Amino acid sequence: MAKQSEAISMASSSPPPSSLSPPEIPMELHVNNREKLIKSLRQHLTESSRPLQGFVILQGGEEQTRYCTDHIELFRQESYFAYLFGVREPGFYGAIDIATGKSILFAPRLPADYAVWLGEIKPLSYFKERYMAGMVHYVDEIVGVLHDQYQGLDKPLLFLLHGLNTDSNNFSKSAEFEGIEKFETDLITLHPILTECRVLKSGLELDLIQFANDISSEAHVEVMRKTRVGMKEYQLESMFLHHTYMYGGCRHCSYTCICATGENSSVLHYGHAAAPNDRTLEDGDMALLDMGAEYHFYGSDITCSFPVNGKFTSDQCLIYNAVLEAHNAVICAMKPGVSWVDMHKLAEKIILESLKKGCILVGDVDDMMVERLGAVFMPHGLGHFLGIDTHDPGGYYKGLERPKEPGLRSLRTARELQEGMVITVEPGCYFIDALLVPAMENIHTSKFFNPEAIGRFNGFGGVRIESDVHVTSDGGKNMTKCPREIWEIEAVMAGAPWPLDKTSIYSENGGS
Amino acid sequence: MAKQSEAISMASSSPPPSSLSPPEIPMELHVNNREKLIKSLRQHLTESSRPLQGFVILQGGEEQTRYCTDHIELFRQESYFAYLFGVREPGFYGAIDIATGKSILFAPRLPADYAVWLGEIKPLSYFKERYMAGMVHYVDEIVGVLHDQYQGLDKPLLFLLHGLNTDSNNFSKSAEFEGIEKFETDLITLHPILTECRVLKSGLELDLIQFANDISSEAHVEVMRKTRVGMKEYQLESMFLHHTYMYGGCRHCSYTCICATGENSSVLHYGHAAAPNDRTLEDGDMALLDMGAEYHFYGSDITCSFPVNGKFTSDQCLIYNAVLEAHNAVICAMKPGVSWVDMHKLAEKIILESLKKGCILVGDVDDMMVERLGAVFMPHGLGHFLGIDTHDPGGYYKGLERPKEPGLRSLRTARELQEGMVITVEPGCYFIDALLVPAMENIHTSKFFNPEAIGRFNGFGGVRIESDVHVTSDGGKNMTKCPREIWEIEAVMAGAPWPLDKTSIYSENGGS
Repeated sequence: MAKQSEAISMASSSPPPSSLSPPEIPMELHVNNREKLIKSLRQHLTESSRPLQGFVILQGGEEQTRYCTDHIELFRQESYFAYLFGVREPGFYGAIDIATGKSILFAPRLPADYAVWLGEIKPLSYFKERYMAGMVHYVDEIVGVLHDQYQGLDKPLLFLLHGLNTDSNNFSKSAEFEGIEKFETDLITLHPILTECRVLKSGLELDLIQFANDISSEAHVEVMRKTRVGMKEYQLESMFLHHTYMYGGCRHCSYTCICATGENSSVLHYGHAAAPNDRTLEDGDMALLDMGAEYHFYGSDITCSFPVNGKFTSDQCLIYNAVLEAHNAVICAMKPGVSWVDMHKLAEKIILESLKKGCILVGDVDDMMVERLGAVFMPHGLGHFLGIDTHDPGGYYKGLERPKEPGLRSLRTARELQEGMVITVEPGCYFIDALLVPAMENIHTSKFFNPEAIGRFNGFGGVRIESDVHVTSDGGKNMTKCPREIWEIEAVMAGAPWPLDKTSIYSENGGS
Repeated sequence: MAKQSEAISMASSSPPPSSLSPPEIPMELHVNNREKLIKSLRQHLTESSRPLQGFVILQGGEEQTRYCTDHIELFRQESYFAYLFGVREPGFYGAIDIATGKSILFAPRLPADYAVWLGEIKPLSYFKERYMAGMVHYVDEIVGVLHDQYQGLDKPLLFLLHGLNTDSNNFSKSAEFEGIEKFETDLITLHPILTECRVLKSGLELDLIQFANDISSEAHVEVMRKTRVGMKEYQLESMFLHHTYMYGGCRHCSYTCICATGENSSVLHYGHAAAPNDRTLEDGDMALLDMGAEYHFYGSDITCSFPVNGKFTSDQCLIYNAVLEAHNAVICAMKPGVSWVDMHKLAEKIILESLKKGCILVGDVDDMMVERLGAVFMPHGLGHFLGIDTHDPGGYYKGLERPKEPGLRSLRTARELQEGMVITVEPGCYFIDALLVPAMENIHTSKFFNPEAIGRFNGFGGVRIESDVHVTSDGGKNMTKCPREIWEIEAVMAGAPWPLDKTSIYSENGGS
């Protein structure tokens, strides 16, 4: 009977599956983004003594079919286009008149049988209202409309989006349409200015990133609670996806979920098709779950690490706390003007100090820093801008060089922090044979290792703790709300509500 | 107390969330597929008095990044390549030696830092064993290896995959690699023969399609049970995706889920980015859920229609039973030799007869058939081949003409049924203004309509019932296991287990 009443009490007191619901989407966000761009572009033109005339024009994304089939991949708008126009449908173009600031959307002209197969053919007025555009015309009217709007004398000038993405090394594809030869084009001016607009987030953008963080944080907690030895990694992924879609309305994730357990947790980008989250969780494994949902284009990027059986071993504590200390120290140190390269080094140094305290490394930590030993344990960069893209652009503006040293060269930005940036803080500590073995054999670095202690971590994998941080006027605000302290994780995994009711936890666990 | 004990009893007697688990993947399936192709190709070459020499060579799919970013879309193998080689990783080529039947996989040579970012670099022997290939080499060795293997005197001949997909009107992309000019190439022979191999399924292929059907059927039942007025359509999608991934290990769906309620259920391909399953379910709505999971490339394609509040109205019964009767009659009539065009017409006729019985239509059904009135209510084809693609290829072999009449011209195949085909049976009845209004105004068809009765169905949407049917030697085996009768659906939505324990249901409901 005791068990039964316990079951009843749990059932009747069990909290609702989510405290969240998808917020309204404020389309003013994109109006503001357009105004910001035009202001910035006009300033640039004025400074270069160029006329305030012409149009910004971008081509939105198109639906893609899979290979030769008619299988249509779920469409997701191109990110620059999403930033300026917020349009969720494929096949659009968007323009902004630099002289007037007026925005013009160009919608695809749909065939009549679209209404039977794909849904109501919406009138142009629908898109004008929904997307708060100044005008809406059809794509096949671009040339005429832009010539009509143009107030200059010569061929109208189009500012096209052409520039390098410093994460992918790919170039953005500038707009193409029939009749483009009737315009002058400028391929140089727009990309750096528009990219820079995306680097500093507005209040409305922050709200969406916050919601993506809230629902993803809640989903991480849900997954932690339900993780059991014997499950498959992909079951953790499935629970995350379900929670964020069911309760957050998030149809897309920011990136493919990384659900790595055991040794897999040292594979930084695990989870792709060739390593598809298909291992079975074993007692004693650490899990490293890097998963983030996206809401109305704006994303989150969150990693939690925890033991799949709910209880940290002393070695797991050692590595976990090394990373947590780095994570916390960086967030505490963040504020405008701080160099991100310095933050990366701060994280490295704290991790190396902890490994030394834990007798895994021996010797002088400053000497280790000179030999770049941090990059053996954390080969990736400390963090990256986050927004409409998971790796949001703008990490390296023209003239800012990428560092060349191991670890530092993986940084997706080497900038100084500025108010309004959102950047991930994701220190990690991994035991990767491909890096450890050479470092332990290298004459400059072998002396730092305690081979016996390192041996204990064979097959350990790694730990990463990742939060999304908004740089404010005087510090860093952590937008991610997951259990981070070991006692918090253990309590949540044992069934405690989150956020923890600290009084009751302390009294129940005797303050542990 | 009564309620509490009920809760206990429900909790303790509640069935496990799934009776299924993902089956082992039999790689012999792909060995068999290769053997089948080579046998068929050799027969063709012999009949054309051509030498039994040369290689079939296919290029597998590559990972794609999203626009200019480094966001990698989750990779899914190209379907012809998946059929022959079963390889889940990107970047492969595969060849089969026509003289010996030996298969040769070519794996991409991965850079050293792959091990840090993406996982262990597997040795070639791993792929040889996993994919049961005759030999495995690197992609950059294609030219040398094929020349070494070749036993003829001239340039080796490559049979490349080039041909039309009759659903998309796209052409398959034939293999490309450096040094291909050192071979003779044949672009004509392979495509129709390989496509024909895919049309008739082996036992091992049927097993996978059956599993995809089992887990998807179970997920449909789960969704039916949990559907509530006030939910969003995407929440039904989320429940389906979660069930099939969590318990079936299905990371991919066969297609984007169509979760249409109310009027949306008359939009045949609802659910895409511009119509993203975002309506709120209202009391009195019908739901039309077209959702199917994929397991190791092989898919399912299932539609259930039901009232979101769990109880059919008389008008809902009328339309639902019209479609169900067509669905059942077609499956009963299916066997080798039967024309699919005739099956389509059979379904149309039954639906028209039911609409006449329901006083929605008036007049002679044969006259309606002459005027193609069926296509007003069912503008899509009755069904399509199903396999590694949702719209599996081979519906129109060379010389088989596509019908030109409304409705019939939408058929994805006009073939006669053969043993081993898997084909969807998906009759539907929709109230689509874009088709109804012109038909009610047309001088040849207006006479058939009872405008008053039709008026009752304004905003009704539509009903589709879709099962996947395996054509056996003497009939059709329905691989889909969803509640189909109205009383079954109502019982399951009221909480009855599925499959129904018919005795208890009958006694509880007084045989209703």
